[in-house]
Amino acid sequence: MQHTEQHLKSSDFITDMVIGMSDGLTVPFALAAGLSSAVSSNNIIITAGIAEIVAGCIAMGLGGFLAGRTELEHYQSELKREYDEVEKVPAKEMEEVKEVFAEYGLSTEAQDLIANELAKDKTKWVNFMMKFELGLEPPNPNRAVQSALTIGASYFVGGLLPLSGYIFTSTPLQGLAVSAILTIICLFVFGFFKSKVTGQPPIQGALKVTMIGLLAAGAAFGIAKVVA
Amino acid sequence: MQHTEQHLKSSDFITDMVIGMSDGLTVPFALAAGLSSAVSSNNIIITAGIAEIVAGCIAMGLGGFLAGRTELEHYQSELKREYDEVEKVPAKEMEEVKEVFAEYGLSTEAQDLIANELAKDKTKWVNFMMKFELGLEPPNPNRAVQSALTIGASYFVGGLLPLSGYIFTSTPLQGLAVSAILTIICLFVFGFFKSKVTGQPPIQGALKVTMIGLLAAGAAFGIAKVVA
Repeated sequence: MQHTEQHLKSSDFITDMVIGMSDGLTVPFALAAGLSSAVSSNNIIITAGIAEIVAGCIAMGLGGFLAGRTELEHYQSELKREYDEVEKVPAKEMEEVKEVFAEYGLSTEAQDLIANELAKDKTKWVNFMMKFELGLEPPNPNRAVQSALTIGASYFVGGLLPLSGYIFTSTPLQGLAVSAILTIICLFVFGFFKSKVTGQPPIQGALKVTMIGLLAAGAAFGIAKVVA
Repeated sequence: MQHTEQHLKSSDFITDMVIGMSDGLTVPFALAAGLSSAVSSNNIIITAGIAEIVAGCIAMGLGGFLAGRTELEHYQSELKREYDEVEKVPAKEMEEVKEVFAEYGLSTEAQDLIANELAKDKTKWVNFMMKFELGLEPPNPNRAVQSALTIGASYFVGGLLPLSGYIFTSTPLQGLAVSAILTIICLFVFGFFKSKVTGQPPIQGALKVTMIGLLAAGAAFGIAKVVA
């Protein structure tokens, strides 16, 4: 089954890495590009870049942590509610099972049979309601911590790359040139693998990701020049 | 049904607003805080802040646009594949329907009945496979554009608030004080409503969101001081 495999491949880890790295490669690069048009010292750009990377890394990492925790808490509170409902109002829950299948044109006979059979095992019944009525999958309990670390580290690595251009050059415009070349290569490679993993056409995906980075940097460059 | 209502309330629009605003309130604030420890002029902080807001706004907005487009394309390609399979290998698809229900302990009799009834209407059958086998819901075709605008605008508004502290003061540390007070209030109010909408305890949620902002800003401040 090709589509099941695709589902397995785009795992939580890869999703988190993509989230962290696409922002990490884009925003610090664009910020540095913007400052290159406005200030005359590489030091200020490096300081601002590092401040942004640290800020983004923590904000996105902790954001990922909270999202993971919220998902887990939400699942557990819905699970508890479904257990309560199956216990207290089983007839109503059986009606809900039937409604799910009525929507797909199944006969009342089939609906009754499914509802009656499911009602025999409360755990399976509740799991069924969680997935098919509410569309919730059991989350991985370690997801929050893993998410935070993966997103944070990817943002950090992604952000340091464009900044390195300013460390080995002496003027902001030289730094921008090196940074742009490095970042375009990285965005393209990153976009290529991201698209492969998510099952999109890789070259097209790579070009899209690269365009976003360049647009963001171009706009930041232009606007910072006007403001400064 | 309380949980169905909750599902409706946390709509795509609100999800996008939360994505844009939580980063918008946090990262530019933390960047400005970091620069406050490293530079002596509010102008540089404002320039860097605006460059970051423009960069973040475009990067996140276009990122949301691409995510929406990818979701739509993915749905359509899976839909096409399911139609093909139902046409070419109906027996295999019927087996897959049965497997879904075998997992929940339904009898072979019930499994056969469901599979046979579903097979009568190909559209409903395919929709069933999309949702129950692949866990995919039909995406809103306008989602990509709406997502881009909502995320971008929320990031922009969220980012301008902390920056405004530096516009009306004359030194970075004064700016940081005003910015911190404004941002703490906004993070708290934002965290409160975000938690209400997602069905979490609101005060606890507000404190968590505020803590993330302060941690990111504190780390950026400390590290920028060391680097500069």
